Formats: sequence, structure tokens, C-alpha cells
Amino acid sequence: MEINIPDTNKPRVVVIGAGFAGLILAKKLSSADFQIVLIDRHNYHTFQPLLYQVATGGLEPGSIAHPLRKFIKRRPQIILRMAEVTQIETAEKVIQTNIGSLKYDLLILATGSKTNFFGQQQLPQFAMRMKTVPQALDLRSMILQHFEEALLTTDMKLRDALTTFVVVGGGPTGVETAGALGELKKHVLPNDYPELDIRRMQIHLIEAGPRLLAGMSDKASSKTIDFLKELDVNIWLNSPVAEYDGHTVQFAGGKQLSAATLIWSAGVIGATPAGIDASHIGRGGRLLVNEFNEVQGLPGFYAVGDVALMTTEAYPNGHPMVAPVAIQQASLLAQNLKRQLAGKPLKPFKYFNKGSMATIGRNRAVVDIGKVRFQGFFAWFVWMFVHLMSIVGFRNKMVVFVDWFWNYLSYDRALRLIIRPFKR
Amino acid sequence: MEINIPDTNKPRVVVIGAGFAGLILAKKLSSADFQIVLIDRHNYHTFQPLLYQVATGGLEPGSIAHPLRKFIKRRPQIILRMAEVTQIETAEKVIQTNIGSLKYDLLILATGSKTNFFGQQQLPQFAMRMKTVPQALDLRSMILQHFEEALLTTDMKLRDALTTFVVVGGGPTGVETAGALGELKKHVLPNDYPELDIRRMQIHLIEAGPRLLAGMSDKASSKTIDFLKELDVNIWLNSPVAEYDGHTVQFAGGKQLSAATLIWSAGVIGATPAGIDASHIGRGGRLLVNEFNEVQGLPGFYAVGDVALMTTEAYPNGHPMVAPVAIQQASLLAQNLKRQLAGKPLKPFKYFNKGSMATIGRNRAVVDIGKVRFQGFFAWFVWMFVHLMSIVGFRNKMVVFVDWFWNYLSYDRALRLIIRPFKR
Repeated sequence: MEINIPDTNKPRVVVIGAGFAGLILAKKLSSADFQIVLIDRHNYHTFQPLLYQVATGGLEPGSIAHPLRKFIKRRPQIILRMAEVTQIETAEKVIQTNIGSLKYDLLILATGSKTNFFGQQQLPQFAMRMKTVPQALDLRSMILQHFEEALLTTDMKLRDALTTFVVVGGGPTGVETAGALGELKKHVLPNDYPELDIRRMQIHLIEAGPRLLAGMSDKASSKTIDFLKELDVNIWLNSPVAEYDGHTVQFAGGKQLSAATLIWSAGVIGATPAGIDASHIGRGGRLLVNEFNEVQGLPGFYAVGDVALMTTEAYPNGHPMVAPVAIQQASLLAQNLKRQLAGKPLKPFKYFNKGSMATIGRNRAVVDIGKVRFQGFFAWFVWMFVHLMSIVGFRNKMVVFVDWFWNYLSYDRALRLIIRPFKR
Repeated sequence: MEINIPDTNKPRVVVIGAGFAGLILAKKLSSADFQIVLIDRHNYHTFQPLLYQVATGGLEPGSIAHPLRKFIKRRPQIILRMAEVTQIETAEKVIQTNIGSLKYDLLILATGSKTNFFGQQQLPQFAMRMKTVPQALDLRSMILQHFEEALLTTDMKLRDALTTFVVVGGGPTGVETAGALGELKKHVLPNDYPELDIRRMQIHLIEAGPRLLAGMSDKASSKTIDFLKELDVNIWLNSPVAEYDGHTVQFAGGKQLSAATLIWSAGVIGATPAGIDASHIGRGGRLLVNEFNEVQGLPGFYAVGDVALMTTEAYPNGHPMVAPVAIQQASLLAQNLKRQLAGKPLKPFKYFNKGSMATIGRNRAVVDIGKVRFQGFFAWFVWMFVHLMSIVGFRNKMVVFVDWFWNYLSYDRALRLIIRPFKR
């Protein structure tokens, strides 16, 4: 069955995914002579960089989710459908979804990335992930449930396992999550659980490689270690995790650790839908695209952001899977599609790296901007400002600001709520 | 298995339910020589009067939920356990829960009320209710999902059914919910769904009796009808609903109505746990208590608020099941238990009715305070002020204020998010 969408004689551009790239494309193309169909499995845009704060009770889900229908207000050229894409038939120029099929003239894949478990068997079943709002809420519930459960037992081994948190992956998400857990331990949990000895709560940040924040400067990495240690986080470098069965973390080197919670932020792969010939897919499950983000060998089919693999001299393995790449590629692709319509020549993509940053806790962050590097309070302030500005929607900026202000003044995390208990 | 709780030689007061009454009791008794065990099935207090705003996308769940662990901060006399009470064994003075059993010296039941379906068979399976945060979130998802589904069909009968909302019960909750849906229809949905003809959306408020807001003045009732009509709500009086199968509302009089959504707010009964002898249970499933809120014939067992039935000359059928009664009974019971400890005589309960109010939409509310009755903008302002003051927690007051301010200025409902799709 075909999805019910008005037929026009304009070329139909189907954009899959309403992340940063998808929203920019839909917005910029809506001024051109296209019919745009925006498809996402949620009815909201997710501001992924702050999901870890939802998981640790610092923010509401609604503060980092922006309703897509609000986004299309006064943009009648954009047709929005909430659907899960199941297959792409490139030869017929048709996509299949859970609500029906849809023909396209141009297709733009902006599906982002999904968690990479590197082929592990048991781990995906027991590891918590943080790529979507429901996943972050599940993690929030699980963390709190484990403390409630710890109260019910007098078996200290079980109690320790219930209050041990393992974060795998020393990238920004892993570092920020471990730091947020450290702040919960320091400021919130001793008041919440006077019956437990919160000093026994353990937070482990585990990285397979030799450095935290491998994409940043040495100074940022080493300062991050200092900050995490101040928040009582145990750091394991050069320690690949082999398996996890819900109780025991098994390291590749043979060591073991008892923990009821394991948060997996050790890597992502391109969220490439089914049906695309393997010849178009490169390293990390990403789609091979040329310098105009067109999938090689499939004219009219584009991929942008995390799901695209554009190899250049400066980035022989493709660009980093971060928001600025997606934003810049989306902006240029929108321009190029308009140029094409006008018969003008296309511009090739060139990534402008504005720098990177991570926050570890209150007054503790690290920032690299080119050769300029700074850490501590000012870095933390810059991190907050940049994130606040990047959140989609004025109302969300406002409520995040209010919550951050509140959290800062009160040392509190007001949203330690188990709205829907997590069940495996 | 017994719940793991420190043994003291103080008398143990078990308080079941952390609504208004439970919180007041736990707080006031914590200054006396008791060990207090507070039990709730959630880890938060719910501000029930605003659940309908969560359901209609105006507020976040976290704005009306207050973490109980935050409440017990610096009150070490209160032991908190998240548990579902399954049975009360009054002879043995033991409660059974899903996490184990617990002995009590004094027991205070503050479990509130649950939805009353008056013995209907199919209805409970298909009707949406609004007594808990997850229920309100389910309703929010369902409302939005029905609009997304309406886009997928060209069958106008199906589309109309998907965009028809039936609210059963003309009390404050029903009136406020119907009004909130009316505001969505007026201000939000036409922008969100330009492909649908939102004028065809129907909202029906159905009441079995002859009046809306039967507990309030005639002036309030009639003005409420005016306000609701301005918001395009169809009002059915003297129209008891006989059945609902998820598609068709069947009236007792024989009429029918096609609607994919039915919200049931037509009545509540006392949420009395199992195990209590039927001789202690009166009208509406409430526990028969004397003027000191002690269950008749069970010394040391108290019930307060919605779950208690105290018959007096002024209230021969018991007090109204509203927050002020619960609050006043809880305060007095805490006082009386301390008086008992000190060997002083007890004070009997006397309800002080401060009045009642309901809001229908922006600038539209009705207030009765004794003989003083007013409606419209000032009533709406008073309603907001009283509710804002009653919300537990400073942070929650603040974010509700911010959201109300935002909703008022923007005519928006920012939280139209389907975080977890509703499945039957």
C-alpha cells in the first residue's frame, strides 16, 4: 500500500531522519520547488548530546525533544510522516516502511548512527544504550531501581554489585555519563539513601584504547582524567571488554568485575537501512558518497552525516561522526540541490572543524578550538553556552536553562523518577 | 520474607500512599517518637490535579512528580520503600507487599482512590484513565497517535472516528480535560495537521446526571457550559454511557457514537487493599472510620482522605473525595497521634470547606468560595495561583510556571511527544 501523500508535479525529495541534518535539509529545501517528505520513527527531534543528562535525572525528556509538527508549522511544502523505514529499493526508487511504500525522485538518507557492539553475542542483550529518549529513560529507571533494590538486601556482595556502574567507552558520551554518575554519588545519593553506605558505590569508566577523548588534545585527555578522579570515577585504559551477562563484566585480559549496570558507549556504526547493495557500504556500515554527498553509483540518492562515508585526503577514513559534520553537509547539500535545479555547478564539501569539547561535571569541562585549549570553569561555561544555543526550540532552551540553573544552585537532580520501571 | 528495615524500640507507624495525606503524615509524625515507614508503589509523589495537562501536552511528567527521596532528605526517622501492597492482615498487624512483609504498630492507609467503572465489562479494557503519570502519558501518546493515523487513511468515516474524543464524566477532571482538548483543537492542531480538516475533530463531554460540576454552584455549572461551547465541546447531559468497545460508544438510551478515544473520568472508589474484612468497608469501597479517622473496630488502624468514609451530620455519605479533605484529615491525625502519645484527649475531625474551582481554558475558569462566586479571567488567575502554590517542591513550581507562561504567550503545547507509543 502506498502512503497517502498528495500528488504534486514537483519533484519529490524524501528525507529519512529528523536529526540535525534532516531538519536543516527539510527547512532549506522547503523554499525551493520541491515536495519534501520528512520521515522519522519518532514525532520529535532528539538533541542527542544531552541524552546522558536525561538518563541521570538532570533533565526532562521533553527538554531535549522538539515536536516535529511544530517544526513544519508554516512550511506546507513539508509533509511529515512518522514511520520506520524497513527497506530501500534503489532500482525502483521506492522506500518501504511500516505504514506503506513511497516513491521518490530524490532520496536523502540522514538516519545517523546506531550502537556498535562489534559482533558481541550476549552483551547487546544486557548493555544499556543511550541513542534515543526511551533508552535514556530506561537507563534512568534502571539506575534508580538498582538503588531501591540494594535497600532490600543485606547481602553485601549483591548490594555492591547493584551499586556498581560500568561505563564502556572513553569518548565524550562515556566521559560525560561517568562524570554525571560521579556527581550523583557526590551530591545526591548520600541524602537519598542514608541507609546505604554510598562510599561503596563504584563507577568504572572503561576504554579499550590508551586514552580518554582520543579525538581531542593530550591536555584535554589528561585533565579529563583528573576531573573524573575528583568525582571518584575509576578509569581503566587499554581494557577491552569481552563479554557481559548482566552480572559480570569479562575483560579481554581475563579480569572480571561484578556490576548490575553496564552502559555501552563504545562506538557507533552507520544506521543504514536494509536493501542497499553491499557495494555501496564502506567502513563502519556507512554509505560511500562522493564530495557532493551522492551515493556512488546511485544518482539521486544522497547520504549525509553519520551514515555517510566521504573519504578525502584530510579524512581518509571518513569524517568524524559528530553533529557539525552532519550540519555542514546538510547545508551544502541543500544549496547544491537548489543549484542543480537552477543549472548551476555544484560545490564540493569541505569540513570546517570548529573544535570539540566535553563536560565532566559542574565547573569541569575541556575545550579544544584549533590550537586554543582550555579546561575548567570557563570551558564548562562555554560548553553550556554552545549546547544551549544548539538545542532546537526556544521553549526547550528556556527549560534546560532553568533546570541547569536549579541543578547548579541546589546540587540536585530533580528528575530522579521511575516513571516506567525498566524490565528486561 | 520480611522487608529489611532497621529495628528500633520506637513504635512503628506504617503509612501507605505518598499522596497529599501520606506526605503530611510522614512529615508531621517525623518530629515525634515514631519510626515511620512510608510505602508507595512509585518513587515520587503525583500532583494529580494537573495530570490532564500532562495528557494534553501542556506539562512534563517531571513537573508534577516530586521525588520521594528528596522529601525524606534530613528526615532520618522516615524509612521509604517502593512497594505495591498486596494484602493487609489486620489480626496479625502485618502488611504483605511485592517486596516482602512488614509488621506495624500503627497503620495509616492513605491510598486514595482508583477509577470506578461501575461494574462495566468491556469498558475498562478500552477506556483511558488518568490517575497516574504513566496513564496520563499513555493518553498523550494515544491522542497524538490517532492524529498520525488519521493522516494515513482516506476513509473519512475512519478519519472522523480517529479524531473524535469522548470524555465521560462532568466533574472537574472531565471538564478540564475536555477544555484542554478544545484548546488543542483551536490553537495547536490546525498548524500541526494542515492536511486534515481540524474543524471535523469532535470533542464530546458526557455526563450521566443533569449538570456539569454538580458539586459547585448553578452559576459555575452554567458558565462552564458557555466556556466549553466556546471551545467547541459538545455537551451531553443526562446521558449515561452503557458500553464502549474501542470503536463505538453505546449510550444507555440507545444512541451510538464512533470514537477511537474514550477518556473515563466518571467516578472513583476507595483504593482499599485486599485482606480487610468487608464489615469495615462502606459505600464507594471506602473504609468506615470514626471522627478520629480510626477504622471502626480495628484499633491502631487509620484511614485518611479518599479511602476513608467518615459519616457526619453535615456529610451523611462521607466527605467529598478531594485533596483538602485528605490534607485536613492528615494534619489532624498527625496531631492526634502525638496527643495520644502525650496522654492528651483527641480532637474530632471537622471539615473546613475552602471552596472549589475548575479551569476550562485560557482566561476561563469558575470559582466558588462559600457564597462568593466568580468566573472568567480572574477565576482563571486564582485557579493558577492556588495550583502553583499546591505543587510540591520549589523546582516544580518554577517549571510549571515557565511552561504555563510559555503556553499562554505562544498558544502552544510544547510537549506533544510520543515518547513511548501506546499499545493496547
